[in-house]
Amino acid sequence: MSEIVQNKEKLFVIKIGGNVIDKDANLDSFLDDFSEIQNKKILVHGGGKIATAIGDKLNIQSKYIDGRRITDDETIDLVTMVYGGLVNKKIVAKLQSIQCNAIGITGADANLLPAKKRPVKEIDFGWVGDVSPESINNNTWRLFLENGLTPVAAPLTHDGTGHILNTNADAIASVIAVSLSDIYEVSLVYCFEKNGVLMNVNDGDSVVQQLDHEKYKFLKESNKLFEGILPKIDNAFDAINKGVKEVIIGNSTQLISLISGTGGTKISM
Amino acid sequence: MSEIVQNKEKLFVIKIGGNVIDKDANLDSFLDDFSEIQNKKILVHGGGKIATAIGDKLNIQSKYIDGRRITDDETIDLVTMVYGGLVNKKIVAKLQSIQCNAIGITGADANLLPAKKRPVKEIDFGWVGDVSPESINNNTWRLFLENGLTPVAAPLTHDGTGHILNTNADAIASVIAVSLSDIYEVSLVYCFEKNGVLMNVNDGDSVVQQLDHEKYKFLKESNKLFEGILPKIDNAFDAINKGVKEVIIGNSTQLISLISGTGGTKISM
Repeated sequence: MSEIVQNKEKLFVIKIGGNVIDKDANLDSFLDDFSEIQNKKILVHGGGKIATAIGDKLNIQSKYIDGRRITDDETIDLVTMVYGGLVNKKIVAKLQSIQCNAIGITGADANLLPAKKRPVKEIDFGWVGDVSPESINNNTWRLFLENGLTPVAAPLTHDGTGHILNTNADAIASVIAVSLSDIYEVSLVYCFEKNGVLMNVNDGDSVVQQLDHEKYKFLKESNKLFEGILPKIDNAFDAINKGVKEVIIGNSTQLISLISGTGGTKISM
Repeated sequence: MSEIVQNKEKLFVIKIGGNVIDKDANLDSFLDDFSEIQNKKILVHGGGKIATAIGDKLNIQSKYIDGRRITDDETIDLVTMVYGGLVNKKIVAKLQSIQCNAIGITGADANLLPAKKRPVKEIDFGWVGDVSPESINNNTWRLFLENGLTPVAAPLTHDGTGHILNTNADAIASVIAVSLSDIYEVSLVYCFEKNGVLMNVNDGDSVVQQLDHEKYKFLKESNKLFEGILPKIDNAFDAINKGVKEVIIGNSTQLISLISGTGGTKISM
C-alpha cells in the first residue's frame, strides 16, 4: 500500500470476540468505552457461543472434519441469523443509545466485503470465505466514515453470486485495516481476554509493551513467548508490512488504555 | 410536507410481504424484476412465516392478547435474528449478485428509523414500535440513495435507548415514502397476492385501475369494495395527503407492470 498523503487522519479498527460478546455486562461495558473514542472507528465482532447454543436448540450440530469446522447449508443460515441479526443489531442498538451513530453490516451489504469461497482441497469447508485487502471497496467505507457513521461488521462476507460466507473476524479486521491504510493512519486493535503479549503466560502482568521486528526475532529465538500467540503476532507484522501503522493486542476490559497507548502490546515497524 | 423543488427525481418505495418472502422461487423472481428498476428505489420487507417456523423449533410460541400479537423478550430476539439477519441478508446477497448495490438495514442502523415503543394501554404489546415521518432522518437515506445504494429495510426499528422494536412493514414503507417526498417524487408500491383493488373480490381480474378521492367515495358508499381492502386504501390516501405522489397496489409477480403504470391500482389525488 503506497503512502501518498503525509498527514492522514487516524482510524481505529477494533476487533472483539467471544469473551466480550457472550456476556451482556462485558459487552455493555466495552461498548461504553468504545463510544468514547473520538476518532473515526470501525468495530468488527466475532460470533461467540450464542450461535452454538441456538444451533443446539434448532438441532443444528457443529460439524468438523479433521478438527476443522465446516459451514454447511443450515450452519450458514444459523450464523447469518445470529451474527448478522441478533449479535450485530444488539451492538448497534446499544451504540445508538450512547451517541455513537453505528451502522451494522455484513460483507454483502453495499458489497463492503467481497470474498472468495474457500476452494475445496483436502477439506470442503463449505460456506467459508476468504477476504483480501485488494478486493475491498474503500469508497463505501470512506463514505460512511466521512459522514459520521461507525460501521459495525459481523464476521460474514459474500461471494458475489448470492451466497453469504462465514469468515474469520480477525481476518476481516486485518483486511479492512490494510485496505483503509491507503486513506487513514490505521491502528488495528485486537481485544481478547489477556492483557497483551506475555513474557510469562502464567503471569498476566508480564506484558511486552512494545514489539518491533528485531525484538520479536530475539524473543522468538530465545523461546520466551507462548506458542499460541505467535500466529497472532505474525499476522500483526503482516498487516504492518502492508501499511497498517500499528497493531495493539490487549484486554477488552482496558480499551481506553489500549487506544491511548498506555496498555497492551503495541506492535509496529 | 411542503413542495419546494419543482422537478424532483423519481423514487420507488416498494413493500413486499409473506407471499414473496416465504417461497425462494417467488423471492428470486421478484428480486430479478426489482433489480431492473433503473430509478432510485428502496425495498421494505415484512417477516413471513419463517420466524414462526424457527420460533416453533426454539420453543418460542407466538403470544396473543385479545387476538393481538405480543412481542416479548424472546420474540424480539427471534424476529431480530430472522428478519434482520436471515431474511434481510438473503435478499441483499441475491441483489448484489444481479448488479443491485443493496444495503440491508434495520431502523437502528444509522438511526434510520427511530420509533416510539407503543404505550401500554389496554394491551401491553411488548417490544413493538410505531414510526412517524417527522422522526425520519432524511439525510442518511439521501446519502445512500445519492451514492448508488439501494436500502433494503427489515421491519425493525429502535427506541433510542438500546432496544430493537418490531414494527409493521406497511407502516415503515409509508413513513419512508412520506418523509422522502420532501426530496423525491415518491411512488409507494404495495405488493401482495392480488392484482390490485378489486371490484369483485371473487374475480381477480376486476381491478380498479385508477382511484382518486371522488371515485373511492362513490365505490365505498355503494358498498362495491371488499371490506378488507378499505384500511389499505385509507392508508394510501393518508400517504398521498402527506406528499407521496401516488400509491400503487398490486401483484408482486407483476412488479414491472406496477412500476410502468400498466398494472395494479393506482391511487392518487
